[in-house]
Amino acid sequence: MLLSPQSYPAPLLDTINSPADIRSLSLDELNRLAGEIREIIVKTVSRNGGHLAPSLGVVELTLALHSVFDTPNDKLIWDVGHQSYAHKIITGRREIFSTLRQYKGISGFPKFKESEYDAFETGHSSTSISAALGITLAKHYKNSSNRAIAVIGDGSMTAGIAFEGLNQAGHLDKDLIVILNDNEMSISPNVGALSSFLSRKLSGKTMRRVKDHLVEKLQISDVGENILNILRKSEESFKSFFTPGMLFEAFKFDYIGPIDGHNIADLKETLETVRDNAQGPVLIHVLTQKGKGYEPAEKNPDIFHGLGPFDISSGKPHKTKDGPVTYTQVFGDTMVRLAEKDEKIVAISAAMVSGTGLTTFAKKFPDRLFDVGISEQHAVTFAAGLATEGIKPVVAIYSSFFQRAVDQIIHDICLPNLPVTLAIDRGGVVGDDGPSHHGVFDFSFLRYIPNLVIMAPKDEEELRHMLFTATQHNGPAAVRYPRGGGQNVNLSKHLQKLETGRGELLLEGEDLLLLPIGNRVYPALEAAEGLKKVGISAAVINPRFLKPLDEALICSWADKCGRVVTIEDNARQGGFGSAVLELLSRKGLYGIRTCNLGHPDFFVEHGPQKTLWKNSRIDPPSIIRAAIKLMNRN
Amino acid sequence: MLLSPQSYPAPLLDTINSPADIRSLSLDELNRLAGEIREIIVKTVSRNGGHLAPSLGVVELTLALHSVFDTPNDKLIWDVGHQSYAHKIITGRREIFSTLRQYKGISGFPKFKESEYDAFETGHSSTSISAALGITLAKHYKNSSNRAIAVIGDGSMTAGIAFEGLNQAGHLDKDLIVILNDNEMSISPNVGALSSFLSRKLSGKTMRRVKDHLVEKLQISDVGENILNILRKSEESFKSFFTPGMLFEAFKFDYIGPIDGHNIADLKETLETVRDNAQGPVLIHVLTQKGKGYEPAEKNPDIFHGLGPFDISSGKPHKTKDGPVTYTQVFGDTMVRLAEKDEKIVAISAAMVSGTGLTTFAKKFPDRLFDVGISEQHAVTFAAGLATEGIKPVVAIYSSFFQRAVDQIIHDICLPNLPVTLAIDRGGVVGDDGPSHHGVFDFSFLRYIPNLVIMAPKDEEELRHMLFTATQHNGPAAVRYPRGGGQNVNLSKHLQKLETGRGELLLEGEDLLLLPIGNRVYPALEAAEGLKKVGISAAVINPRFLKPLDEALICSWADKCGRVVTIEDNARQGGFGSAVLELLSRKGLYGIRTCNLGHPDFFVEHGPQKTLWKNSRIDPPSIIRAAIKLMNRN
Repeated sequence: MLLSPQSYPAPLLDTINSPADIRSLSLDELNRLAGEIREIIVKTVSRNGGHLAPSLGVVELTLALHSVFDTPNDKLIWDVGHQSYAHKIITGRREIFSTLRQYKGISGFPKFKESEYDAFETGHSSTSISAALGITLAKHYKNSSNRAIAVIGDGSMTAGIAFEGLNQAGHLDKDLIVILNDNEMSISPNVGALSSFLSRKLSGKTMRRVKDHLVEKLQISDVGENILNILRKSEESFKSFFTPGMLFEAFKFDYIGPIDGHNIADLKETLETVRDNAQGPVLIHVLTQKGKGYEPAEKNPDIFHGLGPFDISSGKPHKTKDGPVTYTQVFGDTMVRLAEKDEKIVAISAAMVSGTGLTTFAKKFPDRLFDVGISEQHAVTFAAGLATEGIKPVVAIYSSFFQRAVDQIIHDICLPNLPVTLAIDRGGVVGDDGPSHHGVFDFSFLRYIPNLVIMAPKDEEELRHMLFTATQHNGPAAVRYPRGGGQNVNLSKHLQKLETGRGELLLEGEDLLLLPIGNRVYPALEAAEGLKKVGISAAVINPRFLKPLDEALICSWADKCGRVVTIEDNARQGGFGSAVLELLSRKGLYGIRTCNLGHPDFFVEHGPQKTLWKNSRIDPPSIIRAAIKLMNRN
Repeated sequence: MLLSPQSYPAPLLDTINSPADIRSLSLDELNRLAGEIREIIVKTVSRNGGHLAPSLGVVELTLALHSVFDTPNDKLIWDVGHQSYAHKIITGRREIFSTLRQYKGISGFPKFKESEYDAFETGHSSTSISAALGITLAKHYKNSSNRAIAVIGDGSMTAGIAFEGLNQAGHLDKDLIVILNDNEMSISPNVGALSSFLSRKLSGKTMRRVKDHLVEKLQISDVGENILNILRKSEESFKSFFTPGMLFEAFKFDYIGPIDGHNIADLKETLETVRDNAQGPVLIHVLTQKGKGYEPAEKNPDIFHGLGPFDISSGKPHKTKDGPVTYTQVFGDTMVRLAEKDEKIVAISAAMVSGTGLTTFAKKFPDRLFDVGISEQHAVTFAAGLATEGIKPVVAIYSSFFQRAVDQIIHDICLPNLPVTLAIDRGGVVGDDGPSHHGVFDFSFLRYIPNLVIMAPKDEEELRHMLFTATQHNGPAAVRYPRGGGQNVNLSKHLQKLETGRGELLLEGEDLLLLPIGNRVYPALEAAEGLKKVGISAAVINPRFLKPLDEALICSWADKCGRVVTIEDNARQGGFGSAVLELLSRKGLYGIRTCNLGHPDFFVEHGPQKTLWKNSRIDPPSIIRAAIKLMNRN
């Protein structure tokens, strides 16, 4: 279902079918082209939603890079990839750009299958240096003089893998180019020592190629101890002059910058100089403004980082009909409430304070909210340290980003059995962001870990009790909840501690047992209604706990009904259904007919959640069909 | 089965029952005590095996830390923890130190249950800064003036999580102390830009408290542009003076050092100064020698990093009867052979070139071996970059350390479906290193990932074919093999490409199907022999592929026999047995009696592999018992 391209007046852009077409443009034309590209980006994102501010910030940089480098032979790697819209538009996807993030349309991230200009698939942050280094080594090995260029934001620089990449790159000393796209914020304003360090700007001085110039021009001979003395005497002046580059020079990169990232002439000159002269790894520090060229986004880059459809003239989001409160909001509200009653509760976020619903918590308890930046590994181990001292940390991270912290969950939380709560937001498919962001593996990558209690609420009310339960549990506990609105149920006054490993029977039935978990409970209840109409009596159990399972309840009803359909918004492989099969086998309940519904063994594409649930056959009609099929199976 | 303590003449040590006892000792006594501690460490490790060189390197540092700080109220966090032997000896475990790494004896790593002085459980590297930061924040929150001190090696500093921790620590500006234990090597000599940067030593100058001294004493006023000029003019001199500290100062740490890590007086003075005066995060750079005080270990710190029993006078390992060649050796030999025939094959190691059997490969193909340091995340994404250019990278990492790279395997290898081979050594229990090092979760954390082919060889010969098959596969493939010796089988001349997803029937049978995987295939064959003696006819299939399963072969024999016992050296939860249950359910083979053998749902302790296999009931007698039980079950 490709949407028809909307027509925008873009006379210059209409002539650009590949980067080759921009290499002959004058500076004036390139600047006009940047304007046309911004317009198409703003208009498209205003209709489709998407990552607006990051992409607006790098329009000139994109044009400069494709002008100077021989793409696709030279490889451009966009870290995270949410800033690649201009890149997509000038690399043959202008006419289908209107399908951005639409079901069956082009992705919001670089994809091999879309274009040979997409040199590496990204989505999660901070991988670009490692990938570009691999490509550089391969080019070197094949005696190719082509280059790899990583474009990485200052926010992404806080993740450990970026440093691991810098460290090996400095050691290998090959011609890698890293562009530090410094807009002084990742998604939220940046945190961490690195951030304030980068933001000490060089007060208008041009520092470009400072090394060469100075080494050539200055002839001061008395070095050594004196330098040491002078330097330390004036440490602050020193830092303000040197630290942005020194960090990277410590990793043996040549440091160049900062450069104005919206000045195409400066960018082209710098990139050409590097292309023609640089040897070994180079870091070019480029200053950009998120949301550049669209006033509402310039003023509120945080809001315009990623958003849904909006009105271009006002910058306001399109009115959507009032939906139920989101799980994320309920999580945030409950955290405030818990923190008010228990001073040991603290919250940890990895550069997602707003995204995980912790904004109010942060305002009310600024000393109890730790935003560690894009550092999921550290977030978990930091929580472990807090927990050894009796603090009750709640680590709120999206499901797909928790993939970064699997070892820390196993080794630093569960092996020593420390009471840390993992608040796993965006469990299940997330929608338009697609496969890199779907949270469909967490049941599978958590379930085998000893000591970990894992819960998944059927609705927003249960989320509250589960969060309370997790913070009361004397060991590691995870609560996994989906993206989007809840079930619009009433929220009770008191929070209740749930009994660990105890599920609830929601509906009695005789013919088969529907065993959904988390956000699949209500769809299963709906399916049970539908089954009743065709004369099938289905029992429904909400297990609440993926681990430990309510063995007695599940086994007794499975035995009673003789047929079980499990349903989960997670991969079928190794997930909840798999746990139920293990349970039935262990208990010797061999004759029971089982069917596990969940995401199949491939990466789920991007699209509306409802469409993806339907495609993976975990929506009510699919549950009904599976149940009927199971009834008819011998 | 606690071993009786061996008696060593240690008159001073015999009086030390807790750190309180060393705080009143004179410098001379502390030095004598260090000697006695070294002797007990050398003697014990010569009998039990263990991490000798790391622990010998920090004896003085351990004494200085416990002398100056108020342990256990002040918290000492030993990164990795393999250097904690002296700490264990002086914190109440002197008399049971002889049980080090013995089954039911004390662990080779810090453990909460062993001592209140073990402030954080470690085993995997580079977690100490994050943990210490969490403890520091908790102390601060509780208005305690107690401190947390992380002791981290220069090798561990290359891992991303260490940088993530530094970054937040600098930002939070609390009184954290990090001791950089710099011995210029982790397990193998260090790699990476950071390493060479740290090793630029300050040519004998004492740099301690250099900042305060200089700021006080020197009165040079003309700062700014001149400094810039002077500095850049003499960049090399500059770097040699400044970089060790500058990196950490960039992260807003006060840098102190380097200090001689074997001079107790200097160490105590420095630590006291920091304890009494420092505000905000401090990094103390301590230089130590691995293996200090035991000549063979000083000369060969690599060999003496971790080793089995050895002869003290010669430093030679005790003769063990010639066992079969290890899987690790066969992997290394096969890599050389593959690389000789295919110039696209390269190998990637994460600070474990020798441990993963790649020493010969490194010598023969130095340009095709990339040791990225302790950087598992980067290792995988770097491989992905190489693979996009047609190179065939083989990433060789121990199973438990691959836990660090789960997101990179999902997101950077399998989502874009890149042909990277994961060579997963130490799959299954590893023995004396215990739970942090057992590789018993990899089947579970890999099996749900789309596009990934996963193999496990029954013996060293099959490992060779699987490795060849993986490097020929046009997509991501993993080969998982155990620690220790193979089956002593003949190695064929030619390498064979296995058909993807095709298992082999090893034994026909009628009563039940034994379905072992990897290193459990031979034990299952042995069990089948035993079952025959009691009149039970067991079929045995080697599935070879955990994913994709040989569905036809498994289902036909499962159906034929009606009973299936799966056996794996992996957690039962979400592993191979779970995959078989999913298969049988999906195929509608409901009546089959199943039993999954594998590690139960708790962390497996340390001990000999055979003991652990027996405890988890995956050895031949246990398989026989499980089979008989299944035969008798209705």
